[in-house]
Amino acid sequence: MSGFPVFASRRVRSTPFSARIEASGLSAYTVYNHMLLPASFASLEEDCAHLKRAVQIWDVAAERQVQIKGRDARKLAVMMSARDLTKAVPGKGYYTPICMANGGMLNDPIALCIADDLFWFSIADSDMLLWAAGLAHAYQLEVEISEPDVSPLAIQGPLANQVMAEVFGEAVTALKFFAFDYFTWRGHKLMIARSGWSKQGGFEIYLHDSTLGLQLWDDIWEAGKEYDMRAGCPNLIERIEGGLLSYGNDMTREDTPLECGLEKFCQLESGHEFIGKQALLNQREAGLKKRIMGVHIHGDKIAPITKIAPCTIQGQTCGFVTSAVYSPDFDLNLGLAMLASEQAENGRQIEVEIDGQRRPAMICELPFKKGK
Amino acid sequence: MSGFPVFASRRVRSTPFSARIEASGLSAYTVYNHMLLPASFASLEEDCAHLKRAVQIWDVAAERQVQIKGRDARKLAVMMSARDLTKAVPGKGYYTPICMANGGMLNDPIALCIADDLFWFSIADSDMLLWAAGLAHAYQLEVEISEPDVSPLAIQGPLANQVMAEVFGEAVTALKFFAFDYFTWRGHKLMIARSGWSKQGGFEIYLHDSTLGLQLWDDIWEAGKEYDMRAGCPNLIERIEGGLLSYGNDMTREDTPLECGLEKFCQLESGHEFIGKQALLNQREAGLKKRIMGVHIHGDKIAPITKIAPCTIQGQTCGFVTSAVYSPDFDLNLGLAMLASEQAENGRQIEVEIDGQRRPAMICELPFKKGK
Repeated sequence: MSGFPVFASRRVRSTPFSARIEASGLSAYTVYNHMLLPASFASLEEDCAHLKRAVQIWDVAAERQVQIKGRDARKLAVMMSARDLTKAVPGKGYYTPICMANGGMLNDPIALCIADDLFWFSIADSDMLLWAAGLAHAYQLEVEISEPDVSPLAIQGPLANQVMAEVFGEAVTALKFFAFDYFTWRGHKLMIARSGWSKQGGFEIYLHDSTLGLQLWDDIWEAGKEYDMRAGCPNLIERIEGGLLSYGNDMTREDTPLECGLEKFCQLESGHEFIGKQALLNQREAGLKKRIMGVHIHGDKIAPITKIAPCTIQGQTCGFVTSAVYSPDFDLNLGLAMLASEQAENGRQIEVEIDGQRRPAMICELPFKKGK
Repeated sequence: MSGFPVFASRRVRSTPFSARIEASGLSAYTVYNHMLLPASFASLEEDCAHLKRAVQIWDVAAERQVQIKGRDARKLAVMMSARDLTKAVPGKGYYTPICMANGGMLNDPIALCIADDLFWFSIADSDMLLWAAGLAHAYQLEVEISEPDVSPLAIQGPLANQVMAEVFGEAVTALKFFAFDYFTWRGHKLMIARSGWSKQGGFEIYLHDSTLGLQLWDDIWEAGKEYDMRAGCPNLIERIEGGLLSYGNDMTREDTPLECGLEKFCQLESGHEFIGKQALLNQREAGLKKRIMGVHIHGDKIAPITKIAPCTIQGQTCGFVTSAVYSPDFDLNLGLAMLASEQAENGRQIEVEIDGQRRPAMICELPFKKGK
């Protein structure tokens, strides 16, 4: 952590929930899509343990929506998405890499098919709206592209079902993974999905009106009291343990989805055309030069790394760690690393340099498994 | 200020100068182009006073470059820029609004013509690279688009000439406003421009190799000692006093350059075609519905506003303040406001609501003038 406070401004926006999270034990922010995103509360370790045993309410308003509306909405959505959205149906979300022509990733949103002529891309931290707008302009597509007033609020953790049922009724718990539907709350129709940026299960509420933010928070907070609910946020330890990649950290425009282990979300055989497809086919044919893997980093407990950490084998560079943190549950420092394919082998010993100190480390498969 | 620290990570990058600025009295960060940008040191007021009387070294590495290289580089640069770049010459920088088809601004970079087939856009806080890449892909332009390893370091203030002359030789002081040239430092060729995000004069050094950052800082720091140089950053008070607009704060995709008072940078008569031109011509013909103005906000000294502040005339909404701060030199709270054109008249009395409190205020022309 830098230890230096961050200024809020119109450019680095607060959220409809900021007043509540700042009063609920927040200890650090990050900035995501030009918006404040909570980064820790009690501590990364305590937040993680609590997330795994109870339920948390997360201000993830920074997951902004790129709305594409109009006759050519599906055409543009399909063109941008490695996932085949030609048959996407209303009520389902589709995690998809978005690639440039060279296969490099520029975002990894969840594409939500709201209606046949209306898609939302719930984006990671880059201005994907500008990519969509540039394509729409040049291809003269009949679409309107905008960022609607939508502020996701997530309820995550093993007790999420109970809290959600109290506020929105039992029916909400019937939602399948990555499906969404509409539920009535105080006379408002709220879109709710079973999704979220943890492996603990839960929901994301796509609040469509900022002015309702505090009331929504308060109602859920009240319902959460008997379940030991706390304010939380996407947790660095939990997401690394679970092998959840973070765009901007573990994958960038320099990386293709194949290199990031996301091939199952790239429907290269489906016949749909999308930007980057040829590059991915070529890369698959030629073989990957690098790929993302896990690493166990030995030695004392580390603080979360704040920049890439170089990896070497017998003094030769073989890649770098992109994210790393100490996991209490594994009692190990765990990292995600982009490594040369020829070296990226389960069990191989490497060295990782963190803050000028070289540490022995071992490559492993993702997601991490205990006792391995 | 939120008071909450910000996490650095690969996604929210530190800079080649971070180690030095964090040891030089930094008190707050903001995040800009996915990078840490200093926001204050001693205090906004003390920083401002010092900037006006001496010289400061600014870590503005967050001014990232979008590099466009190749046979069609100029074609793409011209297509994107309201400023006419058809005759842009190497060695000059051109401040230009970048518009979407509807005239809304998506960035306001300085376009640097490096060579006939090579442009850099030194960008404000949005991923303009994705806009450029989308256009280049769809129009099948022969260009490579990238973010090079370039980290601007600014020297700003009335004594900037002296410090720069000591480090780079007297010749650097002959640079004209917005011109750039190359100067030798420790055997490296550094690109230096007379530019910067203040009205106090100064230079920006486009450092082309991150690993040289600390040495460059140290050499300039040493030379600055006899001129009372301090570490600083773009200063909220100074930039509002000078009417320098901030993309994301005072102008967004919802605003056209005409509404932002930037018509002189939109060469609508020059014959060059650019995206948004027709929308701007139509808007000029129809008349502006809103425009940016200054406001004097009466009453006690305010803290910098962190979100837009609604403006009313006799209870009717007429726009909002986008940035505001107390200016010691004016002994007034100064704000920038986007106001309905019919009300946007010098001397008109309005009310501004800040943190639930209504204050009387007066509209004025930009830039602010003392005693008016």
